[in-house]
Amino acid sequence: MSEIVLHNYFRSSTSYRVRIALAMKGIAYRYAAHHLRHGEHRGEAYLAVNPQGLVPALVWSDGTMIAQSMAIMEFLDEMVPEPPLLPADPHGRARVRMLSQMIACEIHPVNNLRILNALRERYGADDAEVASWFRHWVEATFEPLEKMLAESPQTGTFCHGDRPGMADICLVAQVANNARFGVDMAPYPVISRIHAACMERPAFIEAAPMKQPDAE
Amino acid sequence: MSEIVLHNYFRSSTSYRVRIALAMKGIAYRYAAHHLRHGEHRGEAYLAVNPQGLVPALVWSDGTMIAQSMAIMEFLDEMVPEPPLLPADPHGRARVRMLSQMIACEIHPVNNLRILNALRERYGADDAEVASWFRHWVEATFEPLEKMLAESPQTGTFCHGDRPGMADICLVAQVANNARFGVDMAPYPVISRIHAACMERPAFIEAAPMKQPDAE
Repeated sequence: MSEIVLHNYFRSSTSYRVRIALAMKGIAYRYAAHHLRHGEHRGEAYLAVNPQGLVPALVWSDGTMIAQSMAIMEFLDEMVPEPPLLPADPHGRARVRMLSQMIACEIHPVNNLRILNALRERYGADDAEVASWFRHWVEATFEPLEKMLAESPQTGTFCHGDRPGMADICLVAQVANNARFGVDMAPYPVISRIHAACMERPAFIEAAPMKQPDAE
Repeated sequence: MSEIVLHNYFRSSTSYRVRIALAMKGIAYRYAAHHLRHGEHRGEAYLAVNPQGLVPALVWSDGTMIAQSMAIMEFLDEMVPEPPLLPADPHGRARVRMLSQMIACEIHPVNNLRILNALRERYGADDAEVASWFRHWVEATFEPLEKMLAESPQTGTFCHGDRPGMADICLVAQVANNARFGVDMAPYPVISRIHAACMERPAFIEAAPMKQPDAE
């Protein structure tokens, strides 16, 4: 058994998700930084860890490598059950996974750095166009997400009841990204309220991008 | 208690995933078709079911609506455990979720119909350019996926051992989509072998796009 290592990048919102989950669970780990803008994640050394060349990747204490932030969070929740990232009942778990994946499958993948770079390279998109693209996909999902949160009796202080979980983690990491592209949060009062409640919690604060050793 | 309804579209690969899972579990359901190219999923009637206006959405027998194919599959696996879509051990579950999400988070979201339409509308991408974009993101993930499957002793007849599960479902639905955009499968012999093994199974065959009532 050796140390747990998180391969990540301070500004990567999927890395941010995993850092929050690790902090909530109180799991100590070594922070291995890979500077995405410098292409460090595409180097041979890192490809030997994660052939996909993406962050985050978690190397568990027994040497098992797990990539994909949503898979990592599910694994952490199974290995260290308290505090839980998912509710105990299947219906509640389905709701939290659904809310999480609305962000993880519909917003983040189309707005991450490699896609935005591809828009610049293939179509000559400038900063304004890239920001417009980014905001478009946030709005396409935040509008129904706001509605679903506002209308459900299961929404509490957090996305599902009164303790934070997987959906809140995804929400906070996305809202942090939004700020960099000028997304107007005024149409999303419930999302904003949940974000504010999360940001009072130590695990969310210490996992924030600007608190990381590679922040610049 | 009433019938289970799957809101879906024959050609949607995320719908295909859920159809396979339902067939594997032997769960009977009503097929509610929404023609994506005609915008039927954006109508008021469907938005009242799923505010996100995307397929698939499952309405369980108690009236609970669950959107997002990965959340639906996890729910089905919890409600109807046999045959399992995930292994019993946390490490195996993490591996299958990782492989699944490589497809579900890195390929499908950037290649689905609304993104391809946005490339046409925003950047004037023509059919050849749209196909090039599609293939690029498939190749960026299928290359490491092939390597990870080829090098792991946990890969068997299927992605994880000798019975099909969540990763195989994602793989098959993606390979079906690939065929429509001329992806060369020659560089992916392990993926191709697993796909062929799946397509011998009744659940995969009956869930296929061209077997659905709305196929055209």
